[in-house]
Amino acid sequence: MQALVDKIRKEGKVLPGNILKVDGFLNQMIDTALLDEMGREFARLFSSDRVTKILTVEASGISIACAAAFNMGRIPAVFAKKHNTLNQDPDCYSARVFSYTHNTEYSIRVARRFICPDDRILMIDDFLANGEAIGGMLEIIRQAGAEAVGAGIAIEKGFQKGGDRLRAQGLKVESLAIIDSMDEGSITFRS
Amino acid sequence: MQALVDKIRKEGKVLPGNILKVDGFLNQMIDTALLDEMGREFARLFSSDRVTKILTVEASGISIACAAAFNMGRIPAVFAKKHNTLNQDPDCYSARVFSYTHNTEYSIRVARRFICPDDRILMIDDFLANGEAIGGMLEIIRQAGAEAVGAGIAIEKGFQKGGDRLRAQGLKVESLAIIDSMDEGSITFRS
Repeated sequence: MQALVDKIRKEGKVLPGNILKVDGFLNQMIDTALLDEMGREFARLFSSDRVTKILTVEASGISIACAAAFNMGRIPAVFAKKHNTLNQDPDCYSARVFSYTHNTEYSIRVARRFICPDDRILMIDDFLANGEAIGGMLEIIRQAGAEAVGAGIAIEKGFQKGGDRLRAQGLKVESLAIIDSMDEGSITFRS
Repeated sequence: MQALVDKIRKEGKVLPGNILKVDGFLNQMIDTALLDEMGREFARLFSSDRVTKILTVEASGISIACAAAFNMGRIPAVFAKKHNTLNQDPDCYSARVFSYTHNTEYSIRVARRFICPDDRILMIDDFLANGEAIGGMLEIIRQAGAEAVGAGIAIEKGFQKGGDRLRAQGLKVESLAIIDSMDEGSITFRS
């Protein structure tokens, strides 16, 4: 999506360790015009997938998930909560997620009553790198017996393996911007 | 706002300790049609206040803040991050917030570059009880030298003192639903 690529070029900051800071328009301060445009684009990309519900992980996925859900016919958006404790809650579906950024494992949880077996779930997230968060959401959807119709990602780090691995598994993955490299502060996008 | 009051009556669950669970439409699963209606109502209530930016606290404030910001002319929405550690980050404004629900103190932080002295800030939150989160946001706005034009709250627990205290201090506080009591599971709204 050109508007997002342009925004990343203009305002994104590359930090050591392959970290891309987009907190000026996506992650802490949110450009709500761009957000709506992203929501519309996800609605277009998944228009034929009969999505019934959006699933994301708190906190930075929430705004994008709501924009997508609103533009897909005002369907519900569910966000998984992060917990440092890994104990199982019987009323929740849960999965473990390893964060490379923070080098730690956490669990994500969704109350059971929020996902039904007949749900067709679109997963939304701000970043896709190694695919750990999507993997956790896939596990939750599997536990619920629902169907994962795909993943909608704002920014995919194409030089990490998550997106390619998920696509190889047959998952529909649509990323609004795919970064092929960001060496020495210069960002190259996949065209 | 009648639609929100109706939704709370229909789906809200009162738990011991004056806790109102609204996770089926506001706090974990989000009703995006209702969310947009809430955003429009905040835009109407603060239409004459020349708001330049919305401020909220992660995670459950984010969706409401984005809906309000979008409907107020696509202004930016900023969310303060919660930290368990209370150490000061020189690039951030920060404030301490005491959570009665969790009986713990945490800090909220906003990067300095996201609030300017000429900003007119509307604070948004899902709940207002003792007013601790709004107090923390007011402190951050004060540190930035910006102006707090008011607080827009989804659900105010009118039987706790936060809303009345903030109004007595001269702050414009607009709550879409005010609960006067929720004794024994029965919820009474302020008319």
